[in-house]
Amino acid sequence: MNIKEEALRLHEIWKGKIEVNSKVPVNTTHDLSVAYTPGVAEPCRKIHENKDDVYKYTSKGNMVAIVTDGSAVLGLGDIGPEAGLPVMEGKAVLFKQFAGVDAFPLCVASKNVEDIVQTVKMIEPSFGGINLEDISSPRCAEIERRLKQELNIPVFHDDQHGTAVVVIAALINALKIVNKEWKDINVVVSGAGAAGSAIINMLLSVGVEKIIACNSKGIINSEEENSNWVHQEIAYKTNKENRKGDIADAMKGADVFIGVSAKGIVTEEMVKSMAANPIVLAMANPEPEIMPELALSAGARIVGTGRSDFPNQINNVLAFPGIFRGALDARASDINEEMKIAAANAIAGLVNEKELNEEYIIVPPFDSRVGEAVSKAVFNAAVESGVSRIN
Amino acid sequence: MNIKEEALRLHEIWKGKIEVNSKVPVNTTHDLSVAYTPGVAEPCRKIHENKDDVYKYTSKGNMVAIVTDGSAVLGLGDIGPEAGLPVMEGKAVLFKQFAGVDAFPLCVASKNVEDIVQTVKMIEPSFGGINLEDISSPRCAEIERRLKQELNIPVFHDDQHGTAVVVIAALINALKIVNKEWKDINVVVSGAGAAGSAIINMLLSVGVEKIIACNSKGIINSEEENSNWVHQEIAYKTNKENRKGDIADAMKGADVFIGVSAKGIVTEEMVKSMAANPIVLAMANPEPEIMPELALSAGARIVGTGRSDFPNQINNVLAFPGIFRGALDARASDINEEMKIAAANAIAGLVNEKELNEEYIIVPPFDSRVGEAVSKAVFNAAVESGVSRIN
Repeated sequence: MNIKEEALRLHEIWKGKIEVNSKVPVNTTHDLSVAYTPGVAEPCRKIHENKDDVYKYTSKGNMVAIVTDGSAVLGLGDIGPEAGLPVMEGKAVLFKQFAGVDAFPLCVASKNVEDIVQTVKMIEPSFGGINLEDISSPRCAEIERRLKQELNIPVFHDDQHGTAVVVIAALINALKIVNKEWKDINVVVSGAGAAGSAIINMLLSVGVEKIIACNSKGIINSEEENSNWVHQEIAYKTNKENRKGDIADAMKGADVFIGVSAKGIVTEEMVKSMAANPIVLAMANPEPEIMPELALSAGARIVGTGRSDFPNQINNVLAFPGIFRGALDARASDINEEMKIAAANAIAGLVNEKELNEEYIIVPPFDSRVGEAVSKAVFNAAVESGVSRIN
Repeated sequence: MNIKEEALRLHEIWKGKIEVNSKVPVNTTHDLSVAYTPGVAEPCRKIHENKDDVYKYTSKGNMVAIVTDGSAVLGLGDIGPEAGLPVMEGKAVLFKQFAGVDAFPLCVASKNVEDIVQTVKMIEPSFGGINLEDISSPRCAEIERRLKQELNIPVFHDDQHGTAVVVIAALINALKIVNKEWKDINVVVSGAGAAGSAIINMLLSVGVEKIIACNSKGIINSEEENSNWVHQEIAYKTNKENRKGDIADAMKGADVFIGVSAKGIVTEEMVKSMAANPIVLAMANPEPEIMPELALSAGARIVGTGRSDFPNQINNVLAFPGIFRGALDARASDINEEMKIAAANAIAGLVNEKELNEEYIIVPPFDSRVGEAVSKAVFNAAVESGVSRIN
């Protein structure tokens, strides 16, 4: 049986991958009177007196909503909120497994930005954090921006920032091997959606100066009309030389290629046209922009993909569970740039200098150290950057 | 340590009474590829092709949202959504414990009817049913009416209908003892909020013809101005003789008193003024309308309260878990009158004729037969009344 058949069969047996369980015993009248009425009135009264006590007496502080409208699910596109639910449940499974975070999938029956923002604002009291998921660009960026302003709890769009954090972690180690510095490298980012725009922003944060972004029409530049404000922002922030052309033009002389776009769009010739010791992170799923063996035979020094069956898997699960664990533990009001960079450094730091090599620039998802390393680093960065609300 | 102190201390230790757990193993790369990408794309595709398959491959079919605005929590009143969360978590615990239903608390940050209706409509894709909880009257009735019309999943306001179901169950057995019939009895309902209005509707459903309702101002009649549409509806449906006066006037000659109002408002004199073999269900919490010993010494034949430390506890937990279990199992589009009456009969039927006596008209909450008895009866009623959507 192949993975597809097995997955379908098991999903039918499971009928849902998550369940809501009780942490408390309710077997006697006494149990009931403590966990429910009349005893439960006491924590209610305390929270009514001091709203902050909701973190002391309830599940809020460990509960994350996974919010989607089902508009950009995996590579399947706009399949709707119901069809997105299996992915959101899977995400909830990973949150619990990798960081002990309780996460609940909320699939929203509207693609309207205002509807989604209002819905999340309305259900904020139950949650300690919001993980936006599989919402198409540019709406995802607008929804995230609005919610970051209007909510008191941290908001994180994993498709953007989770991916960016792991890409930066991989590049930190890859650059050590090729002995290059952030400020010197030429980077091509293929794909200007949720992930692409966040990767570009994080590259800028760490000091990369030369970035060329491409979408399906070619190099994004500020002289051509851009279809949405995310593309306009990218045009403004990248491509200082105002280069034009297609992806083949972009890749000439590049040190790093980062693909969050579509299968097979990178050829061996393009890799050959890159600078010495090129780094290729081809993360289109399930089929990368170029298959690793082709990239390597064309001269790539280091290759990473999104897949577990090749070396150097760039997998969000390295980042989001620990990031939320740290943010929740710190009662952070935000997940800010400092926390994301701390996460990237923590992930990169798990590969020690002796082990580091072309086929091992990033630890695999099941490295048991990841959750704690990331959460500690994120917690500390939250405290140091002033967004923690613990005393 | 008393219950209050114990409850507070334990809530602080628990930090939440519920958790979201994974039902599936994710310990290897293979596990991940089946429960998450790439395998998860298969159930997503199936649901995209046929939205109904969301019940086949996800947790939706067993997942209930417990929705509140925190406006009428226990006897505490309008304490807000955060302060309501401990009660909603307790409710989720009971759903799981008593009927295996996964339930998740959504505390909504608005008391506006439209906001609450829109929020619930937006998150419908994740849930198989909606349990409204602790929302003040008359908004609760309006929200329930709107949602029943506008959603495809069953909606149930437990404070209304859960209470009504258990009251009817208790009365079915109490009437056997006193040998009276629904159509003959005079019933006084004290309290015209969520529970009171639902009890009145269900009394009418089972054939009671003579009902007097009272609120804090006295007998509700159609000649005086009523403060809201729920009271107006009650005035229209009850008090055919158009009686006026206070609760003492109402109780003269009554066969049954049903209190969902306030402590101590019923005196011994009032009980003495009732008809022969009076039944008193004094359910104000934690202090009933009249204490059982007083009611009995004044001549009440049968007394029930909301409390576990007296005989005949009228407790919603007898009803709501099994009602949702049956409705979810039947994929019911609604929880209708037939299903509620089936639930009441099932609960009443657990007390057999030999055991039935004045101090045992209803089984206690921890009777292990309740969940299955109620869910089966509700399931069958859903099928017979045509609201089941299983093939």
